[in-house]
Amino acid sequence: MSKTFELLQPYLDKDMALNTALTLLSWDMETLAPSGGMDYTAKAVGVLALESFNTLINEDVNSLLTKLETPDEQAGLDEVEKAIVKKLRKNYNDLKVIPAEEFKAYSELQATASNVWAQAKEKNDYNHFAPVLKKLIDFQRKFIGYRYQGEGNRYDVLLDDYEPGFTVEILDKFFNEVKETIIPLVQKVSANKDKVDNSFNYRTYNIEKQKEFCHFMAEYIGFDFNRGVIAESAHPFTTNLHNHDVRITNHFLENNLESAIFSVIHETGHALYEMQIDDRLTQTVLGSGTSMGAHESQSRFFENNIAKSTDFWLPVYPKLQEAFKEELKDVSLEDFIKGINQSTNSLIRTEADELTYCLHILIRYEIEKMMFNNEVEVEELPEIWNKKYEEYLGIRPETDSEGVLQDIHWACGNYGYFASYAIGSAVAAQIYAHMNKVMPVEQYLREGNLTPVREFLKENIHKYGMLKKTNELLKDMMGEELNAKYFTDYLTEKFTKLYELN
Amino acid sequence: MSKTFELLQPYLDKDMALNTALTLLSWDMETLAPSGGMDYTAKAVGVLALESFNTLINEDVNSLLTKLETPDEQAGLDEVEKAIVKKLRKNYNDLKVIPAEEFKAYSELQATASNVWAQAKEKNDYNHFAPVLKKLIDFQRKFIGYRYQGEGNRYDVLLDDYEPGFTVEILDKFFNEVKETIIPLVQKVSANKDKVDNSFNYRTYNIEKQKEFCHFMAEYIGFDFNRGVIAESAHPFTTNLHNHDVRITNHFLENNLESAIFSVIHETGHALYEMQIDDRLTQTVLGSGTSMGAHESQSRFFENNIAKSTDFWLPVYPKLQEAFKEELKDVSLEDFIKGINQSTNSLIRTEADELTYCLHILIRYEIEKMMFNNEVEVEELPEIWNKKYEEYLGIRPETDSEGVLQDIHWACGNYGYFASYAIGSAVAAQIYAHMNKVMPVEQYLREGNLTPVREFLKENIHKYGMLKKTNELLKDMMGEELNAKYFTDYLTEKFTKLYELN
Repeated sequence: MSKTFELLQPYLDKDMALNTALTLLSWDMETLAPSGGMDYTAKAVGVLALESFNTLINEDVNSLLTKLETPDEQAGLDEVEKAIVKKLRKNYNDLKVIPAEEFKAYSELQATASNVWAQAKEKNDYNHFAPVLKKLIDFQRKFIGYRYQGEGNRYDVLLDDYEPGFTVEILDKFFNEVKETIIPLVQKVSANKDKVDNSFNYRTYNIEKQKEFCHFMAEYIGFDFNRGVIAESAHPFTTNLHNHDVRITNHFLENNLESAIFSVIHETGHALYEMQIDDRLTQTVLGSGTSMGAHESQSRFFENNIAKSTDFWLPVYPKLQEAFKEELKDVSLEDFIKGINQSTNSLIRTEADELTYCLHILIRYEIEKMMFNNEVEVEELPEIWNKKYEEYLGIRPETDSEGVLQDIHWACGNYGYFASYAIGSAVAAQIYAHMNKVMPVEQYLREGNLTPVREFLKENIHKYGMLKKTNELLKDMMGEELNAKYFTDYLTEKFTKLYELN
Repeated sequence: MSKTFELLQPYLDKDMALNTALTLLSWDMETLAPSGGMDYTAKAVGVLALESFNTLINEDVNSLLTKLETPDEQAGLDEVEKAIVKKLRKNYNDLKVIPAEEFKAYSELQATASNVWAQAKEKNDYNHFAPVLKKLIDFQRKFIGYRYQGEGNRYDVLLDDYEPGFTVEILDKFFNEVKETIIPLVQKVSANKDKVDNSFNYRTYNIEKQKEFCHFMAEYIGFDFNRGVIAESAHPFTTNLHNHDVRITNHFLENNLESAIFSVIHETGHALYEMQIDDRLTQTVLGSGTSMGAHESQSRFFENNIAKSTDFWLPVYPKLQEAFKEELKDVSLEDFIKGINQSTNSLIRTEADELTYCLHILIRYEIEKMMFNNEVEVEELPEIWNKKYEEYLGIRPETDSEGVLQDIHWACGNYGYFASYAIGSAVAAQIYAHMNKVMPVEQYLREGNLTPVREFLKENIHKYGMLKKTNELLKDMMGEELNAKYFTDYLTEKFTKLYELN
C-alpha cells in the first residue's frame, strides 16, 4: 500500500466506525428506543455527528489528499484507492466552500424545520411553514453560489448531490419524454378506470399472517437472514452497517394487504444492493449504492417490474391464498394481478401507483428548478403546485396539507432529491428490458428461481458500490445510458394491456 | 462554570457519546444483529473503543486534571464536578501506569481467551485453557506490581476495580462470618431436603404466556416502558444508554417457570437503579451504579428479599395461576413460596439458590486471593477447586467443566469480580432489614404497592450514582457500614423456618 494512503487510513477507519455507530443509533431510534430517552440520546448523536464531520473535513486530510492527487502518488494507488481519494476530495470541496458559521446556522435551522413543517401540515397552515421554508431556500441559494462553477444550470449543483452526472439538460429531456407519453396515457387509463377492481385489497387481513408471509417473501426474493434483520417502524426503510449487516423495516395495516407485501419487496430490493456490494468496498466511503436513483432502481425493479407480474405470482399466489383462505377465495390470480396494478390519479405522492408516480415527481422537479433559478417565490408555491396537479393529473388539492405541504423533504433540506425517484423507475425499466434480452426472466420467475436475476444485478450493478456512476453502470451493462424510451414503452405496453386501451 | 472545567467538557462529551455508541453496539450484538455481520461490526467497535480510551487518557486531559486539582480551582467546582475530576484522575492513574505495549499485548490475549476457554469447557479439557489462563494471571500479577502502593494485600488492587473501598482485610472478616454461619446451616438444610418440593416448576409452561406475565411483572415492580425496553438474549442482562434509556433482556425455557420470572425481576432491580440515577449525573462518568456489588444488591433485593416472600406473591399469585390454570391448579400459594425458595447443594454457581450462592463465591474469593499472593499455580487450580467444593458444599465436581472451567470471568480478565456477588447479597439483606424498621414493607407488598420501596431506594441509593461508595451509602442510610450479620441472620431465620429446622 502507498505510504501516503496508509497515513490516510486512520481517518478512514474512524469515519467508518463513527458512521457505523450513527447508523445503528438512527436505526434504533426508529425501531426500538423508548420514546422518553430520545432527547438524551440525541445529545450523543450530535457529538458523534460533529466528530464524524471533522474526521474527514480538516487540513490534515486535505494535505494528504493533495499529495495523493499528484501523478507520482496516483501511480502507486489501485483502482479502489484512487476512487476513495476522488470521493473524499469531492466531499471536502463541497463542504469546505461553505463558511463554517453559515453551515452551523443552516444546521440549526434544519434541526427545527421538520417540527415546524409537521405542525403546519397538521394544521393545514402553509403560512406557518413559509418563513422557515424561505430561509432554507435562501441558504441553499447562497450555498449554490459558493459551489456553482459557472457552467450549466444552477440547479445542477443540487441534483449532483443525489444523482452525480444528471443535469437539468439531461433531465429536461427525460421529463419531456415522460410528459409527452405518460400524461395522455394516464388520461386514457383514467377514462377506463372501471375495468380494474382492487376492492379485495381492503378486506381484513390478520397481521400475524401478513408478517409470516412477508418474511417468506423477503427470503424468496433473496434477503439473507444471516446477514440482515427485519424489524417494524412507522415508515419502512432500509439501512446497513456494512454489506454483512443490512436491515429493513416494514409496517402492517389490517385493512390493506398490498401495503406490507410490496413494502417488504421494495425494501428487499434496496437490501440486495447493499448485501451484494463487494467486500473490498464495504466499510469504505465507496461502500454503498452509487446514487439515490440507482438505489431506487433496485427497489422498484423488484417491487414493480418483477413483483407486479403474473409470472412472479404464479408459484407464490397459492401460498398467499393458503394464508388467507377466506379473504382471497374469490380472487383469482388474474384478478389479483389486475388489482395490484390498479392506477388511480391521486394527490399524495407516497400513495401513488407505478404509472402516475412519475407525474408527481415531474411536478416537484419543475418547481425546484424554478426555485433555484429564482423564478418563483415561497408565497407562490401553493398555487403553482395546485395548478400543476390540475394540469398533469386532472385533480386539484383542496388543502395545502395534501398539496405543497405533503412531503418532508424540503423541511429536511433535501432539494434536488425528488428527481432520483423518477430516475429510479426509469433505470429499473431499462435494466428490465435489457435483462429480458439476455436471459429468460419470465421463465425463471415462473420456476420460482430468482437467483439468476440477483446474480445479474450483482455482477452488473451491486458489486461496484460507488465505483461507477449510474450512467456508467448502464453503459457498461448494455452500451446505452439512461433512455426514457424504455420506461415510457414499458408503462405504455403494460397499462394499455391492463386497461384494454386498444 | 469553572473555565478550566469548561475546557474539559468536550472530552467528557466525546467520551459520553462514544460510550453511548459502544453500549448500543454491544446491546445490538447480543439481541438482534445478524450473526454473519459480527466480524465486520467488531472492526468498527475496535476503532471506537480505542478512540474512547484515548479520549480521556491523554496528556491534555492529564494537564487539565492537574490544574483542576489545585485548591484554587477546587474552590470553583461544585460537588459533581469535584467528583468527576476525582474519578477521571483515578481512571487515568490506573491505566497510565501500565506500559502501552503490555496493555496492547494483554488486550490481544484477552480477545482470544474466551474462545479458548469455551473450547476447553466444551471438551472438558483444562489443559487446553491452562496456558492462556497462566498468561492472563501473569499479566495481572505484573499490572498489580505497577499499581500496588505498598500497603495492604496485593489482591486489594483488583478488588478495588469492582468494589472500591473493600479490601482483603474487610472481606476476610466478612467471609469468615459467612463461613461460620452458612456452612452449618446448609448442612442442616441438606439433611432436611425432602421437606420442600418444587417439582411443579418443571412442568410445561407456554412461552408466550410466560412472556406476557414477565412483562406484567417488570411493570408491576416499576420498570418504566417509556424509558426502557425488554428484549431477548441468550443470557439475561441489563444495560443503559443513560437514565432515560435502560434496557433489559430475558430468556424463556418451556420447562422452567422460575427461570424467566426471577430473571426479569433480577434485571428490573438493576434497571431501577439506572432509571433512578439523578439527571445531573446521567451522561457523566458518575452516571451509573456505584459498584458491581451495589448494583447486584439492587437486583438481588428484588429477586430474593422482596420477590421470594409470601407477602409479595399474595396479590400476584392469582394472576400467575390464571395464566397457567392447568399447570398450577394443584399448587397453593404456600407450596409455590416453598418451591421457589428451595435450596440444593449444586456444582454450578449460576444455578445456585439464595442460600448456597455465597459459598460458591467464598470458594472463588479464597482461590483468587491465593492466586495474587502467589500461593497457588495454575496447574493446582482444579484440585483446589474440587477440594473446596467438597469441604463447603459436600459435593465434588466430576469434571473440570462443572468445576474450575465453569465461569467465563477469568477468561475475560475479570479478577476480583466474584466477591461483589456476595457483597451484593449481603448489602441487599442489610437494606431489607433497615427498610423493615422504617416502613411497613410487608404491608406494602400485600397491598401491591411497591412505590414506597422504590422511592426509598431512589432517595438512599439510586439517585447518587457514583457520588458515594457502597459503604458510604449504607452509613448515610442507617449509620452502619456493611455488616455480615444482617445477611447471616436473614438466611438463618428464613431457612430455619422454611425447612422447619427447630
